[in-house]
Amino acid sequence: MAELPDLWTHHPSSVLAFRPGNRVTDIDAGATPGFRGDKADAPALQAERNAVFADLQEMLYANGKTAGDHRSVLLVLQGMDTAGKGGIVGHVVGAANPMGVRYTSFGVPTAEERAHHYLWRIRNALPPAGHIGVFDRSHYEDVLVVRVRNLVAPEVWGARYDEINAFEKELVDAGTTIVKVAMFVSPEEQKQRLAARLERPDKYWKYNPGDLDERKLWPQYQEAYQAVLDKTNTDYAPWHVVPCDRKWYSRLAVTELLIEALRAMDLSWPPADFDVEAERARVEQA
Amino acid sequence: MAELPDLWTHHPSSVLAFRPGNRVTDIDAGATPGFRGDKADAPALQAERNAVFADLQEMLYANGKTAGDHRSVLLVLQGMDTAGKGGIVGHVVGAANPMGVRYTSFGVPTAEERAHHYLWRIRNALPPAGHIGVFDRSHYEDVLVVRVRNLVAPEVWGARYDEINAFEKELVDAGTTIVKVAMFVSPEEQKQRLAARLERPDKYWKYNPGDLDERKLWPQYQEAYQAVLDKTNTDYAPWHVVPCDRKWYSRLAVTELLIEALRAMDLSWPPADFDVEAERARVEQA
Repeated sequence: MAELPDLWTHHPSSVLAFRPGNRVTDIDAGATPGFRGDKADAPALQAERNAVFADLQEMLYANGKTAGDHRSVLLVLQGMDTAGKGGIVGHVVGAANPMGVRYTSFGVPTAEERAHHYLWRIRNALPPAGHIGVFDRSHYEDVLVVRVRNLVAPEVWGARYDEINAFEKELVDAGTTIVKVAMFVSPEEQKQRLAARLERPDKYWKYNPGDLDERKLWPQYQEAYQAVLDKTNTDYAPWHVVPCDRKWYSRLAVTELLIEALRAMDLSWPPADFDVEAERARVEQA
Repeated sequence: MAELPDLWTHHPSSVLAFRPGNRVTDIDAGATPGFRGDKADAPALQAERNAVFADLQEMLYANGKTAGDHRSVLLVLQGMDTAGKGGIVGHVVGAANPMGVRYTSFGVPTAEERAHHYLWRIRNALPPAGHIGVFDRSHYEDVLVVRVRNLVAPEVWGARYDEINAFEKELVDAGTTIVKVAMFVSPEEQKQRLAARLERPDKYWKYNPGDLDERKLWPQYQEAYQAVLDKTNTDYAPWHVVPCDRKWYSRLAVTELLIEALRAMDLSWPPADFDVEAERARVEQA
């Protein structure tokens, strides 16, 4: 069940891997790299892979809870507005038992957060042992919006790429598998998604007039994303570039990235830390 | 869709309500109060009601996010080991988008937690506006295991019932709907569930030899639960007594309790806090 379904011709972890020299401006957000199926194949496949993911997640949780296993997984979701981060959280991460998930959305920093180092709020939200942490936006905002909007001096944000690499190295060394996902939506698709939010009253709450102001800075954001990918794509915490114009594709792809991350941890059910026969006898007598 | 399905003859919020004079020792944990269907009806109904719950949860989240609505929901799960708290979290709460859920499990207090007032860790875990908080065990442990195990003096735990009522009143006044669920499993069913955890290596991690020690104190726990129900069943935060020998029933029942709590909030999609026509024009030009 955990093997890659044959609708995938190439594993997303390789076909979506950012490689030195790749240009953000060359990304086709409407493509479906490595997948030979289409939208009609998605619902059944998503359900099947959600179940595989949920089983692996339970095993991770079990090891964290009882086997002294300090490992964890951290899913980092970055992308422009409407790229579909919320949908990944709901339709992919949502397959896991909420007991084992630690979700955090990083918005405009609060006064307290601003009074601390930019990684303070990030560290506070790291997943405990056995958990899957989900960052909806992340420390990368501190070299994306902060850079584009000139919120700090260039030498300050300029130093952060190395700082972030060192920070992530520390996490990986401590047993966290980091799955970094850069979600790319095309300007055309973003426009349609913004317009759609204005068509239905049950979608108004997702619309923020400020999103259009960010949209005007598209080239600057592309440049900032390029720098992120160029400077923070490490062997211990590599980036995956996920085309997101087709939501069904991006969800399937991120599901496989998570499954792959969990499989690579070579998990098994934790052995009993008690005498099974003796406990059976105790239960029998209880 | 939000109306009670006709497989329910009585709403769980009334048929499971604790009433003064009710005795814990009279609870039939194998019963299915108010439900005229059986196990075969459960999967389809659970899926249907999960969807209703998820829609209402999204609406709660939308209001918390954009409409300045400070309300939230807090699900308090209390019950003996094996009662099925984890299953409620996975199969009921799990239907919601993880973005809007704040789950906390309260185990043996840490050194830091012990250095604070017993409600400190509880307050730290309260759901933000628009969220559903889930307490897997809760402040009630401070009058359950603490009472049964004599962890503090009787006058200390004895004062806590009133303190808890005052605390919950404060939460309700601030806009939190508290859904308190006391989950009851029979000693026979608990024995079977503990034995089952020793039959399969993928269940060993759920087995804790200490659970049998708690089981030996069953009458003392019943007494402690009786006191909780007698003393903390308030009109603003009432208790629901859920028979849990049939997992499918307890999950359906708690789903209805959550749906009812959300419906009682009389939620609607938040109105646009911007000029919809003007924004449509802006998007068109963007």
